[in-house]
Amino acid sequence: MQRDYTIDGNALIGQSGGPTAVINQSVAGVIIEAMMQKPVINIYGSLYGIRGVIDQDLIDLGAQSADTIDMVAKTTGAGLGSIRKSLWDKTTGDVKAEDVAGVFDCFKRYNIRYFFYIGGNDSAETNLIISRNAKKYGWDVRCFHVPKTVDNDLLVTDHCPGFGSAARFVATAVQGIDNDNKSMPGVQIEITMGRNAGWIAAASVLGRKKDSDGPHLIYVPEVEFNVDTFLGDVDAAMRKYGRCLVVASEGIADHIPSLNLDEGDKQFGHKQLSGTNEIGEYLARLVKDELKLKRVRQDTLGYLQRSFPLAISKTDADEAFRAGMSAVNCAMNRMDAIMITLDRRGRGREYHCEMGFTDLENVAEPGKSKEMIKPLPEKYIAGSNNIHRDAFAEYAEPLVGGLPERCEWERIRPRPEYD
Amino acid sequence: MQRDYTIDGNALIGQSGGPTAVINQSVAGVIIEAMMQKPVINIYGSLYGIRGVIDQDLIDLGAQSADTIDMVAKTTGAGLGSIRKSLWDKTTGDVKAEDVAGVFDCFKRYNIRYFFYIGGNDSAETNLIISRNAKKYGWDVRCFHVPKTVDNDLLVTDHCPGFGSAARFVATAVQGIDNDNKSMPGVQIEITMGRNAGWIAAASVLGRKKDSDGPHLIYVPEVEFNVDTFLGDVDAAMRKYGRCLVVASEGIADHIPSLNLDEGDKQFGHKQLSGTNEIGEYLARLVKDELKLKRVRQDTLGYLQRSFPLAISKTDADEAFRAGMSAVNCAMNRMDAIMITLDRRGRGREYHCEMGFTDLENVAEPGKSKEMIKPLPEKYIAGSNNIHRDAFAEYAEPLVGGLPERCEWERIRPRPEYD
Repeated sequence: MQRDYTIDGNALIGQSGGPTAVINQSVAGVIIEAMMQKPVINIYGSLYGIRGVIDQDLIDLGAQSADTIDMVAKTTGAGLGSIRKSLWDKTTGDVKAEDVAGVFDCFKRYNIRYFFYIGGNDSAETNLIISRNAKKYGWDVRCFHVPKTVDNDLLVTDHCPGFGSAARFVATAVQGIDNDNKSMPGVQIEITMGRNAGWIAAASVLGRKKDSDGPHLIYVPEVEFNVDTFLGDVDAAMRKYGRCLVVASEGIADHIPSLNLDEGDKQFGHKQLSGTNEIGEYLARLVKDELKLKRVRQDTLGYLQRSFPLAISKTDADEAFRAGMSAVNCAMNRMDAIMITLDRRGRGREYHCEMGFTDLENVAEPGKSKEMIKPLPEKYIAGSNNIHRDAFAEYAEPLVGGLPERCEWERIRPRPEYD
Repeated sequence: MQRDYTIDGNALIGQSGGPTAVINQSVAGVIIEAMMQKPVINIYGSLYGIRGVIDQDLIDLGAQSADTIDMVAKTTGAGLGSIRKSLWDKTTGDVKAEDVAGVFDCFKRYNIRYFFYIGGNDSAETNLIISRNAKKYGWDVRCFHVPKTVDNDLLVTDHCPGFGSAARFVATAVQGIDNDNKSMPGVQIEITMGRNAGWIAAASVLGRKKDSDGPHLIYVPEVEFNVDTFLGDVDAAMRKYGRCLVVASEGIADHIPSLNLDEGDKQFGHKQLSGTNEIGEYLARLVKDELKLKRVRQDTLGYLQRSFPLAISKTDADEAFRAGMSAVNCAMNRMDAIMITLDRRGRGREYHCEMGFTDLENVAEPGKSKEMIKPLPEKYIAGSNNIHRDAFAEYAEPLVGGLPERCEWERIRPRPEYD
């Protein structure tokens, strides 16, 4: 929303939810831009997201050296620390009043007038709750959400900072695993992140140059996963290629009732899907037992997807930084309660990205974070077990950057000298 | 050994054992150098290692375009296909006569006078068996072993092509995972390759810039692994750092009798340790149950360690190529039954590597591959649970290359404006 006056005070930045490879770029973008704006007196960071706000556990970001800002920006993980903590109480269907009061105590004590929260839609919910309670607590604070999620599933925005690098990791990792599987053929199963949407799993298609390249099968949570169909798919690929590389999003677990996953860490009502190998092991066991295949391997790509320093996409890093800067610009333009959006302009090599904004209400609503996600569009999904490479590459390649080359020997057969 | 005449004929190249990120560089090195040598008439590749020799399943490598050679060299995985197949029959304690006869049938039919096998010590055993049977089959063939193993455990040579890139992947991956774990503190366990030796696990120490950086604990198979000591180590790290990043080599499984690992794929009598998550899951469960900690995650780094295209070490790629060239030079110098060695010259930035050679007998002996390995030297091992960073870095950094920068915010505390 548009406010009719600016306000002088301090800015506070927090990071929330799963870290990404470029989430610190957004912090740096906020700091660099905010330092140049007169209404912003100083810039603080809260340690471990909203927890640090409630606990008044802050650090001074305005006092950091230019070198530190530059180097932290390039470091993967959330430099301020992160957390999964909701201000919404599912049992009462209301906000957690004590926590919200704690937030405003901190804001008043440190004269926070600009709150920048970097996160996904769970964190956008937190930001919205704070914004909606400003009047009640009699404290004028402007709230800005900087999008961040490897899952790429935020509404309105074309894509999310963090996705490009996660996608770059997955595309490259699966390409490498495919090279390996060609060397020693068998069934190889790779489990990617993507709790609710198949964006990350889909990125595995990018390294596929020809039909016989893996991944041969890609499963995303947008499509019903059926165990018998899966086994038939693997069997068919083995017959066709003599090997089979499967990529599945962790989110397919929701379609497999017998998978009784660890239910720890449920702040936002999510099952723990990362840091466990159960999905991959379940699928591998299935293939071994039912198809009687010997060489069956599985990897869960795990937290490397969001933290691997050598797979940072340049575009992703740049855009994450600009999203942070843009949030400050919106603040200076008297906006409030908005999320920055990344708006795509141009196709293919003409791709560029403009920063826009949308009201927080358009991306989050307390208690409804699971409904407010952007699934992988149908146009990218090829039947029940694959992704349309060219269509998806047009979307994803500008975000991911070029992949390493790969090549195979020509199968030129020599003639024996003696018969 | 030194032979007293050269011989004209074709060269055959095979790749064997687990692929690496740079194993195709060695093939390219052999091809490029062999093309320039008059005694070498043509160069063939056998598909899937010794299997392709026995099956006479060859391709013409002399007919490949320069572009293909260059591009395949940069592709991870074994471009010719690989295999774990022994020519030694453990039950009889003798060679597999039928297979060896098949090898010489192929050599004679395709006039193979130079055999280049790229592999670890299991493959060196194969090479030695072929060499020792040449006289019996009345076929003069010269055998050359080009070292290759991510495990870095071959005798005589200072290090092995493939290790630098695997170490680069592990060092960078663990650095990224450490960044992530700092963001969301808990226990994080990473399992690396290294069946018999701790070289790869040790490489995880390279990204540790200060005491509080992970990995906080590193377990290698050279040291007895004790479950109670391990739990005490994790508990102590949690108290000291509020989090704990553990790296353990898959080889520690040998110290844990209760770990009943899948015994498939035992050509050389090895248990399957890669492509299974059992070790990581066992350790994670232990920490959760015994220390009652909530946030415990584990990853098995898996085949990415030997295949990830973005973690190729430039030094490793160069040396792998040169090792291939060097094997051809040895052949032209009338040598036979040798393995190329990488001999270190100079320390730190003065590092460079000369190619040497050693008799195959010094690195392999049929049926004794498990005894003929080079463990991580004691000077790198810090007690029962860590690695001496500086000592190991002096050895490994030239092979691995520079790692990405990492930085943390200065913990400068702001003063509240209102008390």
